[in-house]
Order: sequence, then C-alpha cells, then structure tokens
Amino acid sequence: MAFKIHPYLSMLKKLFSRNPLMPLGEPDLTKGYKTVELMADLMADLLISSSNLMPLSMKEVRLVARYMQEQFIAQNTVFIREGDKRDTGFMVLLLEGEVTVENLVINREDPMIISVLGPGSLIGELGLLDGHPRYASCTAATLVHCSILTRESLQQLMLDKPVIAAKLILAMASRMAERLRDNTDKLKMYVQLTQAMQQELSARTPR
Amino acid sequence: MAFKIHPYLSMLKKLFSRNPLMPLGEPDLTKGYKTVELMADLMADLLISSSNLMPLSMKEVRLVARYMQEQFIAQNTVFIREGDKRDTGFMVLLLEGEVTVENLVINREDPMIISVLGPGSLIGELGLLDGHPRYASCTAATLVHCSILTRESLQQLMLDKPVIAAKLILAMASRMAERLRDNTDKLKMYVQLTQAMQQELSARTPR
Repeated sequence: MAFKIHPYLSMLKKLFSRNPLMPLGEPDLTKGYKTVELMADLMADLLISSSNLMPLSMKEVRLVARYMQEQFIAQNTVFIREGDKRDTGFMVLLLEGEVTVENLVINREDPMIISVLGPGSLIGELGLLDGHPRYASCTAATLVHCSILTRESLQQLMLDKPVIAAKLILAMASRMAERLRDNTDKLKMYVQLTQAMQQELSARTPR
Repeated sequence: MAFKIHPYLSMLKKLFSRNPLMPLGEPDLTKGYKTVELMADLMADLLISSSNLMPLSMKEVRLVARYMQEQFIAQNTVFIREGDKRDTGFMVLLLEGEVTVENLVINREDPMIISVLGPGSLIGELGLLDGHPRYASCTAATLVHCSILTRESLQQLMLDKPVIAAKLILAMASRMAERLRDNTDKLKMYVQLTQAMQQELSARTPR
C-alpha cells in the first residue's frame, strides 16, 4: 500500500526509539486542525463505509477524532505484544507507515506473519473492547504516525455523546463481523484442504 | 446441554410449522413479566459476563428485553439461511430448545455442522450488525422458544436509551471479539496441521 512519511517524522524517530508509546495524558480536545482532519478522513473510510445500520456522519467522525491522541512509534518497536494481559486498554488508528501483525504458532518457533497493515487500519480493537490478553503482536515496520483511542476516552465519549459512541462501537462491531466471516471462510478452506490431504495420505500409506 | 420444553410448546408446534418466523410487529413493551424475566436472566449470563468495559446492569438488561419479541419456531425449521441477503435484520436469543448451525463447505455437498446451540445462545448478530448475507444456516433441532431483536428495535433503543444501546452493542462486540480469538486459534491449529501433513505427504511420495 502506498504511503507518505512526512520529512520531519524521520527526525522524531530517534527521539522516541526508547518508548514503545509516549505516555498518554488527558484527551487533547485542542489538537491541531490538520491532524484531526487527517484522522477524520482515514476514520471515515474505515467507519462510515463499514456499517449500513446507523452510520457516523463526517461531523461525528471529527468529534470522535478529538477524543483520540496523536502518537509516533519508532520503526521496529513492538507496541502490542501477544499474550499481554495488562496493556489492553487502547486501539490504534494507523495514519502513516506500516505495521506487521504476527501470531505465534503453537510450537512457538517462527512467528507466522498474518498481515501487513497500512494507513487507515484499526489495530488492537479486540483488546480495547473485551480487555482479554492481546492475541497478536504488532510491530512498526516503518516509523508509524498514529492516533490512539484509550478505553478511558471511549468511556468518556460514552458519557459525553452516547449516540455517537454507540455508532462508533457499532461500526467497530461491523468490521469485526466482516473479519469473522473472512476467518470462517478460511476455516472452511482448511477443513477441505485437510480432508483432501488425509485422503491423499491414506492412498499413499504402504499396505 | 440440558433444557426443558414446556408441555404447551408441543401444541404450538403444528400451528407455526409453515411460518419460519411469525410476522414481527411493533416492540411489545407490555409483554408478560415471566417472559421478560426469562429473557433477562439468559441475557444477563450472555451480556453481563462477557464485557469488562461498561457492563449492563440487571435493570438495563430487563429494559433491553422489553425491546425484544417472543417467538416460537417449529422443529426442523430453517430460520436463518446461509447466503440470504434480504432477511438479515434480526438476531435471536435462544430461550428454550436447541439450534444447529451449519455452514456449506465449498463443494456444496454435505453441509458441515459447526455447532449445536442451547438456551442462552445469541444467533444471527453478525447479520443484524452489518447487514451482510447470512454466513451460516440455523435450524431448530427441537421446538424453539426464543426472543428476537430486530434492527428497527435496536435503532429505537439507540434513540430512546443511547447509553444502554451502546453498552448492549459493546457486549455483543466483546462476544464477537472472543469468537475472533477462538477462530484465530483454530486457524493456527489448521496451519500447523496442514504443514505437518504436507511433510508427511512429501516423505511418502514415491521417488
């Protein structure tokens, strides 16, 4: 996927190379217009198109963006770690850069790369929603410019603007529904594949 | 899973054997106390335990139950059909009876039984949320007593009680997150299985 890194980002790289994530403070409702617009545009692609049941308006997406916090993550930083039980209270909207998502297979040797995500991707929403341990590891493949929604900010949004919060969660749930369907399709394929391989193995078994 | 069918349900079986679902009217906010309590109890197990982020209170669950409609489905009725694009606007809370969930595999011969669901199960929430075609078929394995939440009722709840709606959708999303994790675990297992079978097949290939 094509993406552009602003020239100043490379200067920030060294600054933040020790911190997986900068410490998060209060929601910054006064953040720059440009960042909010960039977040809102990418979120709009993600959130407005994905649900046909009470979609968010562009104005509502902009409001949600104001509850999120801008972050930079240095290249090669693992910012979500599979199995992590404590650090589940945030999700990441990728604004610029690329992230690899990896899952350890059962033998825990080579991790299996699931996917490479580009700008506009939502990362870590499962942990944000259910608080369970992270089920995949996410690494910044480049310097990453992103926007964070913490559980506290989502709860604040639910108190301040419950209808918008409901629509946001609905859009996230709708994306998860899509992923569930995709996963089920993959599972079906594997069931067939293993059946076919089992038959082939039986045929090749020496008598 | 153990379940009890009230004796009168068997009499209702013939009555409704032609209708996959009885026609749905307006939300019945005056329905019997007993049904609401049964629905609320089963929903409480389902909804309160599944989310640690803003859980519904028992009082809120009872209010949600009042937006749902009681239904009976005759044994052997397919009430959700895989691939159906039109009839996606409802989800079903199973109160009494059992439902088999089946997915057609790619060759479209024998359907693959995914699971048998008992009381307390939520069925069809993916279609309700995203409006996409149904991805599995659901058949009443017994006479089924259930409670339906339509998209219209959910939208009405969002207008009437947005905070409760947000919490409900959050609880549903949290359950979907769990299913996504389960599916991912199954996929990992299949990836390993096919790798092992591939090695075995290579070893058995005649040279």
